Amino acid sequence: MAEKIRVIVWNEFRHEKTSKEIGQIYPKGMHAAIADHLNTQPDISASLACLDDPEHGLTEKRLAETDVLIWWGHMAHHEVKDEVVARLQQRVLGGMGLIVLHSAHFSKIFQRLMGTTCNLWWRDDDRARYWVVAPDHPIAAGLGPYFELPREEMYGEFFDIPPPDELVLIAWFAGGEVFRAGCCYHRGHGRIFYFQPGHETYPNYYDRNVLRVITNAVRWANPTTGAVPREFGHREKPLEKPA
Amino acid sequence: MAEKIRVIVWNEFRHEKTSKEIGQIYPKGMHAAIADHLNTQPDISASLACLDDPEHGLTEKRLAETDVLIWWGHMAHHEVKDEVVARLQQRVLGGMGLIVLHSAHFSKIFQRLMGTTCNLWWRDDDRARYWVVAPDHPIAAGLGPYFELPREEMYGEFFDIPPPDELVLIAWFAGGEVFRAGCCYHRGHGRIFYFQPGHETYPNYYDRNVLRVITNAVRWANPTTGAVPREFGHREKPLEKPA
Amino acid sequence: MAEKIRVIVWNEFRHEKTSKEIGQIYPKGMHAAIADHLNTQPDISASLACLDDPEHGLTEKRLAETDVLIWWGHMAHHEVKDEVVARLQQRVLGGMGLIVLHSAHFSKIFQRLMGTTCNLWWRDDDRARYWVVAPDHPIAAGLGPYFELPREEMYGEFFDIPPPDELVLIAWFAGGEVFRAGCCYHRGHGRIFYFQPGHETYPNYYDRNVLRVITNAVRWANPTTGAVPREFGHREKPLEKPA
Amino acid sequence: MAEKIRVIVWNEFRHEKTSKEIGQIYPKGMHAAIADHLNTQPDISASLACLDDPEHGLTEKRLAETDVLIWWGHMAHHEVKDEVVARLQQRVLGGMGLIVLHSAHFSKIFQRLMGTTCNLWWRDDDRARYWVVAPDHPIAAGLGPYFELPREEMYGEFFDIPPPDELVLIAWFAGGEVFRAGCCYHRGHGRIFYFQPGHETYPNYYDRNVLRVITNAVRWANPTTGAVPREFGHREKPLEKPA
Repeated sequence: MAEKIRVIVWNEFRHEKTSKEIGQIYPKGMHAAIADHLNTQPDISASLACLDDPEHGLTEKRLAETDVLIWWGHMAHHEVKDEVVARLQQRVLGGMGLIVLHSAHFSKIFQRLMGTTCNLWWRDDDRARYWVVAPDHPIAAGLGPYFELPREEMYGEFFDIPPPDELVLIAWFAGGEVFRAGCCYHRGHGRIFYFQPGHETYPNYYDRNVLRVITNAVRWANPTTGAVPREFGHREKPLEKPA
Repeated sequence: MAEKIRVIVWNEFRHEKTSKEIGQIYPKGMHAAIADHLNTQPDISASLACLDDPEHGLTEKRLAETDVLIWWGHMAHHEVKDEVVARLQQRVLGGMGLIVLHSAHFSKIFQRLMGTTCNLWWRDDDRARYWVVAPDHPIAAGLGPYFELPREEMYGEFFDIPPPDELVLIAWFAGGEVFRAGCCYHRGHGRIFYFQPGHETYPNYYDRNVLRVITNAVRWANPTTGAVPREFGHREKPLEKPA
Repeated sequence: MAEKIRVIVWNEFRHEKTSKEIGQIYPKGMHAAIADHLNTQPDISASLACLDDPEHGLTEKRLAETDVLIWWGHMAHHEVKDEVVARLQQRVLGGMGLIVLHSAHFSKIFQRLMGTTCNLWWRDDDRARYWVVAPDHPIAAGLGPYFELPREEMYGEFFDIPPPDELVLIAWFAGGEVFRAGCCYHRGHGRIFYFQPGHETYPNYYDRNVLRVITNAVRWANPTTGAVPREFGHREKPLEKPA
Repeated sequence: MAEKIRVIVWNEFRHEKTSKEIGQIYPKGMHAAIADHLNTQPDISASLACLDDPEHGLTEKRLAETDVLIWWGHMAHHEVKDEVVARLQQRVLGGMGLIVLHSAHFSKIFQRLMGTTCNLWWRDDDRARYWVVAPDHPIAAGLGPYFELPREEMYGEFFDIPPPDELVLIAWFAGGEVFRAGCCYHRGHGRIFYFQPGHETYPNYYDRNVLRVITNAVRWANPTTGAVPREFGHREKPLEKPA
């Protein structure tokens, strides 16, 4: 496995610039915190992109050279151009992995791939414990039975998503809610992982368990080399001769 | 169960008017053939709608009084207005059942709810055998181990849909292909069933097994009375008192 | 739907006789509390069976006339005869619904049908909140977004079961755990539902939401009339003529 | 990834010794044909075991040092000792991968892990085409849209297995049947793959696509390093302080 997994960590990158408090937590942005960790791994090469880059940093050419895209957005979902969203959808269906973080449950790309509203209940400033319910799953590798975040935004059920193809984590919140916090989907030739933590006002993208899950998810979502071609159409001649 | 299940059978209703051959098979349209059968059932009340009706026959008011929508489209998917598609999506997520027939795999509403292209391989004029692979499923009620259609359009894998939440039927085609031909999905508060048969040039919507599957699917997709409310939002106060 | 759903509520029925406290909560046994409620429903006819009945009250003849079996056991799982367990397994695979309650996660029949240990973490005397995560599911009919039990035994993840075919309820416990508390399975022609509440020392089988879930589950697990026959074997002649 | 995946290829190994014809196809046994291919891979180390070895070649010690077990059996399922079957079940639930081939659908270990009869329809001497229906799946890596076997035993639906957690391959048979031919399961900490081809009278374990699927399945079933501990029991103290 000589070649590295090519990752883009995409961030709307607004909160860090408009809020002094958030800027102090993530001076280079949340995406940089995540990418810095991923780049410590021998098999991963992560780069950055954000909303205000030309074409949001997601040109056809760059996406064609990307294995896994990580997405964080919150206040400016509506500013993401529809043509880029369509491009992303095609790339995911064509095999690119997609990791959707926290408030990106409301991103255009996640809603489009899910077909549902992806709505939920929320309340800031809670305490969370994430339980592993699929201990054999590659995304759970190296975790204990659970991990905790002392401060995180509560996201609660009902979470309006399709039933996950694989449910890896369920979150417990001190305020009384539960949440399907680590959800896998298979769409076309691509794999998608939704992961709940990461409110912008807490330093949770420095947490070792959160980073472990994201790192595991990058490896899980990395498209398998040489899978079947993505082709459709009219098959004029039957495979079998008529009897 | 005094009240009947209120069904709309929607048809693009073009082939029947432009092709003499098809018009002879379905003089009142494919939707009428299906509705006529459904209306023989004591617990179902079916009405018709089609593309050329005002608002495609799918006003807010009428949809609010509909339990299950059946959809057939083929040559004019693009003529279905986006605002109506958005309305349908909200109604399905809100609980209305949706049954998607044959070439409606490419309908806007199915693509939007699935999040994938829903593309496939096809070839007209083949012979099909539909195998039950979920014998406990309500949609398989009354079927034998399989049923056959002497002429049907071949639809073949790979079918670009999300992995079905429940796979009820797999089709065998004489030309050599297989197809996931009866697929259930749960989206929001609604249930969705895709069913493969029904090419416009064959009288398959008079076939008793095809009609049995559609009738079963209507009952399965009929929304459960009194389900949990569809609400989302900010929950200001935690359910639990802080420790 | 003239005929009623024929239900057996099976109980090991030991705690109620050996503990004065438990006997006061359930004077006629937990099974009687459940059956009494079911018998208030117009479409259900429930009878009782327990461990100390001859053949545990589960003769071939009686099972052949049963649509849904509800099972509660705890301290005497090992006393259930293997031949009866084998009989139950065959009946479930043949179509009889099975509802497994609380500590019956460790019953022989549930372990055998699941193929896993069905082990978990537990701690008595906690407080539980059950969240609906499949709002369209028939078993959730009539529930709110969640319901609470002021006292219940905690069961916590990891729960060593196959990934549920449908996950309806997730439990939140005040002590910090979560649990997949309402789980559906399809096995052969039969449907199985595991439901977490029901520790013998609390009156939770009188709780209206618990009873509602059990009643819904009876209707959901009731075998569909006229499904495909359960046959297997050597098919000497191909369905198709050799080319 | 310095360490190799440690595989045992287990074979009942009777047909090859009692039938001259089969012995000529597989002079060293079907297991040896499979292991010889696996040992050409840089990341896999495969060894052999068979029914007539002491403890069927599956001692506690050897299993503890095994990552993935491949299983072929047919005429002597009943000779496999129950204590060894129990041992295998515990190892799979503890993380060991299991690949179940062809007629091993009726093996004790597969039946026990599935909880169903695993029965099906069969007919020798047919022609098969295996279609990929999960193109993103690691087990489909390197395959085309389908592959064919000119001679194989037909296995047909209904196949009495739990709905697969992931369905990778559907088989088409010339005689008219379909079959869920590549099925993934997650049980405890272990992964299980059932794969249909491999009747003893045909040289299909030399077929490059069959070997590719088995090789991919070995890598998929290889347990993830450092997953969550497999622990259960009484948790005396709550994780949270009482309010």
